[in-house]
Amino acid sequence: MSVVVQNIARAEQTVIDRLAVCGVATVHEAQGRRGLLASHMRPIYAGARIAASAVTISAPPGDNWMIHVAIEQLQPGDILVLAPTSPCEDGYFGDLLATSARARGCRGLIIDAGVRDVADLTAMQFPVWSRAIYAQGTVKETLGSVNVSIVCAGALVNPGDVIVADDDGVCVVRREEAEAVAAKAEARMALEEDKRKRLAAGELGLDIYGMHEKLAAKGLRYV
Amino acid sequence: MSVVVQNIARAEQTVIDRLAVCGVATVHEAQGRRGLLASHMRPIYAGARIAASAVTISAPPGDNWMIHVAIEQLQPGDILVLAPTSPCEDGYFGDLLATSARARGCRGLIIDAGVRDVADLTAMQFPVWSRAIYAQGTVKETLGSVNVSIVCAGALVNPGDVIVADDDGVCVVRREEAEAVAAKAEARMALEEDKRKRLAAGELGLDIYGMHEKLAAKGLRYV
Amino acid sequence: MSVVVQNIARAEQTVIDRLAVCGVATVHEAQGRRGLLASHMRPIYAGARIAASAVTISAPPGDNWMIHVAIEQLQPGDILVLAPTSPCEDGYFGDLLATSARARGCRGLIIDAGVRDVADLTAMQFPVWSRAIYAQGTVKETLGSVNVSIVCAGALVNPGDVIVADDDGVCVVRREEAEAVAAKAEARMALEEDKRKRLAAGELGLDIYGMHEKLAAKGLRYV
Amino acid sequence: MSVVVQNIARAEQTVIDRLAVCGVATVHEAQGRRGLLASHMRPIYAGARIAASAVTISAPPGDNWMIHVAIEQLQPGDILVLAPTSPCEDGYFGDLLATSARARGCRGLIIDAGVRDVADLTAMQFPVWSRAIYAQGTVKETLGSVNVSIVCAGALVNPGDVIVADDDGVCVVRREEAEAVAAKAEARMALEEDKRKRLAAGELGLDIYGMHEKLAAKGLRYV
Amino acid sequence: MSVVVQNIARAEQTVIDRLAVCGVATVHEAQGRRGLLASHMRPIYAGARIAASAVTISAPPGDNWMIHVAIEQLQPGDILVLAPTSPCEDGYFGDLLATSARARGCRGLIIDAGVRDVADLTAMQFPVWSRAIYAQGTVKETLGSVNVSIVCAGALVNPGDVIVADDDGVCVVRREEAEAVAAKAEARMALEEDKRKRLAAGELGLDIYGMHEKLAAKGLRYV
Amino acid sequence: MSVVVQNIARAEQTVIDRLAVCGVATVHEAQGRRGLLASHMRPIYAGARIAASAVTISAPPGDNWMIHVAIEQLQPGDILVLAPTSPCEDGYFGDLLATSARARGCRGLIIDAGVRDVADLTAMQFPVWSRAIYAQGTVKETLGSVNVSIVCAGALVNPGDVIVADDDGVCVVRREEAEAVAAKAEARMALEEDKRKRLAAGELGLDIYGMHEKLAAKGLRYV
Repeated sequence: MSVVVQNIARAEQTVIDRLAVCGVATVHEAQGRRGLLASHMRPIYAGARIAASAVTISAPPGDNWMIHVAIEQLQPGDILVLAPTSPCEDGYFGDLLATSARARGCRGLIIDAGVRDVADLTAMQFPVWSRAIYAQGTVKETLGSVNVSIVCAGALVNPGDVIVADDDGVCVVRREEAEAVAAKAEARMALEEDKRKRLAAGELGLDIYGMHEKLAAKGLRYV
Repeated sequence: MSVVVQNIARAEQTVIDRLAVCGVATVHEAQGRRGLLASHMRPIYAGARIAASAVTISAPPGDNWMIHVAIEQLQPGDILVLAPTSPCEDGYFGDLLATSARARGCRGLIIDAGVRDVADLTAMQFPVWSRAIYAQGTVKETLGSVNVSIVCAGALVNPGDVIVADDDGVCVVRREEAEAVAAKAEARMALEEDKRKRLAAGELGLDIYGMHEKLAAKGLRYV
Repeated sequence: MSVVVQNIARAEQTVIDRLAVCGVATVHEAQGRRGLLASHMRPIYAGARIAASAVTISAPPGDNWMIHVAIEQLQPGDILVLAPTSPCEDGYFGDLLATSARARGCRGLIIDAGVRDVADLTAMQFPVWSRAIYAQGTVKETLGSVNVSIVCAGALVNPGDVIVADDDGVCVVRREEAEAVAAKAEARMALEEDKRKRLAAGELGLDIYGMHEKLAAKGLRYV
Repeated sequence: MSVVVQNIARAEQTVIDRLAVCGVATVHEAQGRRGLLASHMRPIYAGARIAASAVTISAPPGDNWMIHVAIEQLQPGDILVLAPTSPCEDGYFGDLLATSARARGCRGLIIDAGVRDVADLTAMQFPVWSRAIYAQGTVKETLGSVNVSIVCAGALVNPGDVIVADDDGVCVVRREEAEAVAAKAEARMALEEDKRKRLAAGELGLDIYGMHEKLAAKGLRYV
Repeated sequence: MSVVVQNIARAEQTVIDRLAVCGVATVHEAQGRRGLLASHMRPIYAGARIAASAVTISAPPGDNWMIHVAIEQLQPGDILVLAPTSPCEDGYFGDLLATSARARGCRGLIIDAGVRDVADLTAMQFPVWSRAIYAQGTVKETLGSVNVSIVCAGALVNPGDVIVADDDGVCVVRREEAEAVAAKAEARMALEEDKRKRLAAGELGLDIYGMHEKLAAKGLRYV
Repeated sequence: MSVVVQNIARAEQTVIDRLAVCGVATVHEAQGRRGLLASHMRPIYAGARIAASAVTISAPPGDNWMIHVAIEQLQPGDILVLAPTSPCEDGYFGDLLATSARARGCRGLIIDAGVRDVADLTAMQFPVWSRAIYAQGTVKETLGSVNVSIVCAGALVNPGDVIVADDDGVCVVRREEAEAVAAKAEARMALEEDKRKRLAAGELGLDIYGMHEKLAAKGLRYV
């Protein structure tokens, strides 16, 4: 049952980069409030904002062998996305693997488990979103799979889907929907810019969005 | 049952500002170790220290409609304090709402739920203490209340109570006790300054506080 | 049952300092993947990397009296390691105790409970690894013990054991094994340096570690 | 700051007993979806359903002294409600205290901390709703208060409020609202009985509640 | 984006019933250690063991409207499987909905959120596996979807997939793999029966499985 | 580093059985409130009360190979005590292993991880205290150790120590202290019997323990 899928389709790089500009919250809204990974997925340092194509890894608890296998499958612009087959917070990944992944053009790591060497990773500016920071070492004894569909932190991720990640967390966009979502997200950003100016000038959202009537209809009382 | 209370009493601004200087740990001690919100309430960035008058929000899970309503009730020097009616970590609040709140003079947000756009909020230096950082969007369908008493992260907060928040967390001070607590907190700070010097010079707390005898009486043995 | 052990053996300072250079992940691997404290032990600020001799504290929940007792036992190069006798996240330790501990040469604090005044501790660059940041005050009513063996965050710590702590967490090294572990950790670091260069140059771990054959033998299929 | 309030008002016993019959879910709905304690409050055995007047206890972490004080304040038909002043799961209460409380007419215990001797308590059919079952012993060193307002598991409980508890959890009803809530809850139960019959006969809620139109108006599509 | 898919394929009832006999642990092993929902999904009472076809529900936090919609889609032998669109433990489901669902032939409920009226549900022997027991009421304001693919408690569930649930938790089997998995699970059960007898007679697993050599080869030392 | 220690000392069986009669809460108090495992260790069914000699297992995450090795080391009156080397809730143990362990005279299992086949284990009345119930299967690839000192759920357990377990949780007693602890626990039980009678008759703990004066001295006010 352990396979490595070698040829996966990816979204266009220009579309991916447009999604990175929009960021997680906007992309998530633009695709109908879908695709977020769980809130326990936190960045190891603040300020990174990326988008990349998912190379997925299904790995046994406490065993990082498949990461070595996955790195061979990386293309520039990819990101590793790892889900353990049962809950685990071991430190599957550190600065040596990051060095290797970066040499293949990898943009970061999403891991619903642990990461270590975070001081080095921060110095390298290799971004990681993880469930835990934990130095616990792993072994290389049991197979998993690379580039199969996985559920990572509560979200389904297919190989080649686009991952968007920033300080708000991580969102997945289906490869085939990436362009449409990027367009909607950009439209949303444009609209927000106008609202931001009006709100900054002191206008109320109650007025901009015309909420007074609906609130009254629902029965809100002012006392 | 959904109401907006429009006129609430607030503590004097000078008292509020004195509480900000003292900080959470000192204020908490000064009022008899009461008033702390739970330790899961963490700032989205380090270094903020504020005090402000609470404008409270009771909101349904996954519904941020009442924040728009509450913003209209803000006066300069206020802070929004939101408790969901059942546990929720959705991202009720982002940079647009922060822009609007700031335009009304709001000093920050305390939310026993999630917040998003934290990179923008950090750039704006709009401080938030929250249970989670999570991009999950919310709807505007169900009413809640504004400026009613709420339990937020385990602490009772009445509208107009003073919120003190810094890197140690969040503390609530009853409006009518604010001046007395400020005075006690300042006295405590003065005492601490003297102790800090003696401790820095190498004196032991055991000697400064005269603990040896009580320890011996309780039966502590040195071996 | 409450005792203070006054004379404890410590590892040699040069050995301790060598362990600090190696860091948590490497030391943990070098001693056979043993000795890590649980992943909930997080530093209050990023960037500290220390090693020190443990002065241990067993303290009742919500009572920090024994920290005052322990500070008298500190020698330069020591670190305080506190485990509550039942789970607790109260703020046992703040800037006054840090001032006192530092005056005795203390290098930091490991506490499976809470800490407060973290803005001050960060300004002092007094490193703390804790379960929680929480301003909740403590009392001085009930005895505990100093310099007895404790279980702290899931790891056994004996007085005089070496604590290594950095952004990856906290690891304990038995005093009597400290020199051997330091030697192994340094050897490991040297090996890693070579691998890092080869990986950075684009060589694959699969090739460097000769994994292809073993993967095939286990049945990994490429499709 | 440590007080024992000796005379508290209580709701009428007949009203309390009517609330017990309605149960937690119905009472909670009848009072507008308010008053639930957090879902971590679980019964130590299945099948108990009670209502009683709250005698409240604010107790330090790991210190059960105030339970002894509170037992003297009990009247037949009361229940003890304990909130620790900081999070704690120690076993504050066991079969000896239950024996004493029962001798005073106490109907049970609500404790946002731990309980022990649960096999004995089950054999006695003394119901307890708690955060944890944990044998960890406590001390008798530090004062708290009895019959003051407390926040227990996220809900404000005033002395004399009515506690309703069953397998679904725990709900608090304000003393002065108890009769009105009981009436609403009973009306709700009557309505539910009719609906139960229609649903059991195979009628759909969609039809009984007339939801088809509203669903269509919101945009639900059947495919 | 809110849809109700009305025609879904289901596995054969005889296959489903064979899976029920095998139980969760065996089915999970038989399909290669895949398909388990997270361990927080616990039954509300002990002793139920079922298998059924999934009618899936994607519902907003705190809103149970879609359950009413889903009940119309039930056929005898189905089970409701609900995932909230963001984490929520509200009590979406109680005895009225269970009465309605049972009238349609529903075998139970899998819900990664809360359930209430558990005393009634137990009396009815209507089995539920849930994240929480919590009386918190819900509203009927916001749409979701019925019979779309969902991620429930970390596992992907497609409409018509087979759910197996017992005291060990919950497992999902792809509809199209159901027969093959049932066959493997039954074969596994037969093998286990023989092993059970030998182990009960005192034979060691070390001998039955021939492990001594492999353990020695890996370096296990007996001292 | 992987060893199996074959000859371990055990406490006398009569002493062990006396500890079983006393139960966890009393034994824990009798040895100075030490030795409890964390409160997340819960029995899979209610009503078991046992004491037994620990055969300890240190096992990798998701790998139950060492349980087979440990079973060979069991003697009648022993109990298996397993701690994973990093946090894990996989189901290491089920009815086949229980059958094998029981054939060797094993009295139960303490596991800071998961267990499965709990319906069968309950039918067998094979008691288990665990962190989780979870069907997730394990592999047999990586070595661990048997009969070495482990930290299990926060408590140090040496091979041959006495484990006491009941509905209140799990407590460890050092082998060499077992007789003294049994004597103290029995004395405590005798004392409690007298107090139970007086409390049942309505006497107050405040009077029996003479607390009034100390409470007044500490400053408790009755209002």
